[in-house]
Amino acid sequence: MPSQAPILGVYLSESLDLDCLYGEALRQLGEDVVLQNPHEIEDPTEVAFAICWQPGEDAFTPYPNLMLAMSIAAGVDALLSHPGLSDEVQVARVRDPHQAFLMAGFAAHEVLHQEREFAVMADNATRREWQPLPMRAPEKAQVAVLGHGSMGRAVVTSLSALGFSVTVACRSEPVAPVQGVRYLTGDNAVMAAAQGADYLINILPLTPVTENVLNATLFAQLRPGAWLVQIGRGEHLVEADLDAALASGQLAGATLDVFREEPLAPNHRWWQDARLRITPHVASDSLPEVVAEQVVATARELRDGLPLTLGVDRQRGY
Amino acid sequence: MPSQAPILGVYLSESLDLDCLYGEALRQLGEDVVLQNPHEIEDPTEVAFAICWQPGEDAFTPYPNLMLAMSIAAGVDALLSHPGLSDEVQVARVRDPHQAFLMAGFAAHEVLHQEREFAVMADNATRREWQPLPMRAPEKAQVAVLGHGSMGRAVVTSLSALGFSVTVACRSEPVAPVQGVRYLTGDNAVMAAAQGADYLINILPLTPVTENVLNATLFAQLRPGAWLVQIGRGEHLVEADLDAALASGQLAGATLDVFREEPLAPNHRWWQDARLRITPHVASDSLPEVVAEQVVATARELRDGLPLTLGVDRQRGY
Repeated sequence: MPSQAPILGVYLSESLDLDCLYGEALRQLGEDVVLQNPHEIEDPTEVAFAICWQPGEDAFTPYPNLMLAMSIAAGVDALLSHPGLSDEVQVARVRDPHQAFLMAGFAAHEVLHQEREFAVMADNATRREWQPLPMRAPEKAQVAVLGHGSMGRAVVTSLSALGFSVTVACRSEPVAPVQGVRYLTGDNAVMAAAQGADYLINILPLTPVTENVLNATLFAQLRPGAWLVQIGRGEHLVEADLDAALASGQLAGATLDVFREEPLAPNHRWWQDARLRITPHVASDSLPEVVAEQVVATARELRDGLPLTLGVDRQRGY
Repeated sequence: MPSQAPILGVYLSESLDLDCLYGEALRQLGEDVVLQNPHEIEDPTEVAFAICWQPGEDAFTPYPNLMLAMSIAAGVDALLSHPGLSDEVQVARVRDPHQAFLMAGFAAHEVLHQEREFAVMADNATRREWQPLPMRAPEKAQVAVLGHGSMGRAVVTSLSALGFSVTVACRSEPVAPVQGVRYLTGDNAVMAAAQGADYLINILPLTPVTENVLNATLFAQLRPGAWLVQIGRGEHLVEADLDAALASGQLAGATLDVFREEPLAPNHRWWQDARLRITPHVASDSLPEVVAEQVVATARELRDGLPLTLGVDRQRGY
């Protein structure tokens, strides 16, 4: 094989240590694609591409020959509107179907766990008690899903495949609706979806409009004794309103995977509240090996002057 | 409303107390359809229909004017081949989609519970430990499903919707295959499906061929450290082979919902084995309200001389 100069990329993130997350997986894929942290770059003019997650305002400035900015997640809104990214730079993003499947699996597990009372059964088993519990038809369980991006769609599809009655609050009419699912759009969609629901699954993106959306007014729409599955962002939830809804019984309990401060402080009252299921932000994850494979494949396409399979049309925005 | 003589039916089962299971739900649906146990029937000539589950050999003999035998479950093989059922008697059966959804939900929960280590997370939470665990792409988890009746199909559909790699052992080629699922048929299908699987879900019917199918030879096909979800029949499992597979680590554990003797004896060694999840035969259930609604609707069709919506073509057998 002829030797070839490696193509050089830089990690650009203000919030994540991308080298720590993906460096090992990337290095296993060959030596022709090299990623470095900004402080490791000797000659910034050699940097051909950047791997990004919430890059700082001036992050792109040092690299005059940048040809590509690649997001490690599906959302590229922030990248496309970044004032420091010149129009000549191509944009690409990781497309990870596993991430949506992981989210769907987490949500399905939590709904089934409550609906079928697995915790009660496990407790009975410790006492060697054979005690079949009554069950209802899955379609009689109303599941409200807030959010209908790629994650929300996977959640809706799998819960519908399990026979639950699903209502989903979407930003726009679905392109490929799932049979039997109720899709609600418009300003009142979130409130209307929650109406009478037994399960409320939050998977909205965080925006000024959706911040604090999980509040007392929304909880009041649910069927008394409902269950919240919070897998959106910590800032969606008004913590005091959750406590009040638990105290009144309006919520029987909740699965909380995301928090305003992560990790959740060891002394936080929620850890040992028997009505809550606390998980450490694991509803989904971008899988390092998938991210690494797609980054390397995209960098090689860039080097070879090929069209980018994971490229984003900067005019259309996706 | 003109008064109308009620139509009279009889419960016929050697193994279940059908009155206890469905009597209350049936009585709530009106007084025009009456069900009685054989010993309560005053005039057997008045009995127009029978609700059946494993009726005895002579069960139908006392009722000369029987017009309908209705099974409370989807399988009518036993009824169609019953020597005591005259050709003039119509056959119908309950068709309960919820039963398959319930089964799918149970199987999905158990696979997700292991795959995503929810028990470990719950344990960490009791110690207020924020400890994200690594996860793999769902498609890297190989799920083998044994059995492809209405239950098996629902299990396959939902696990596939959750992104798992599903292989299923079927009696015949599927009519409506799910994209991405591997369907195996033939004598070796069960063994081949188990090959390299991380999860083995048994939902086979019990026949002389399938008895003891869950044995050491089958377990040896699995990936070491696999998980068994046993929701078929107790007689499928060779108990000593399960114990040996747990001892060697070939099975990391198992979810056992069905047993050779039910209820599982309070002193059985399995109750408090931490590698086992014992549930009291609740993977699925025929829902009393669904059975009752369909029995009453069918009895009214019979009374009114209408074609039976849930009738079975006795020639075709379904």
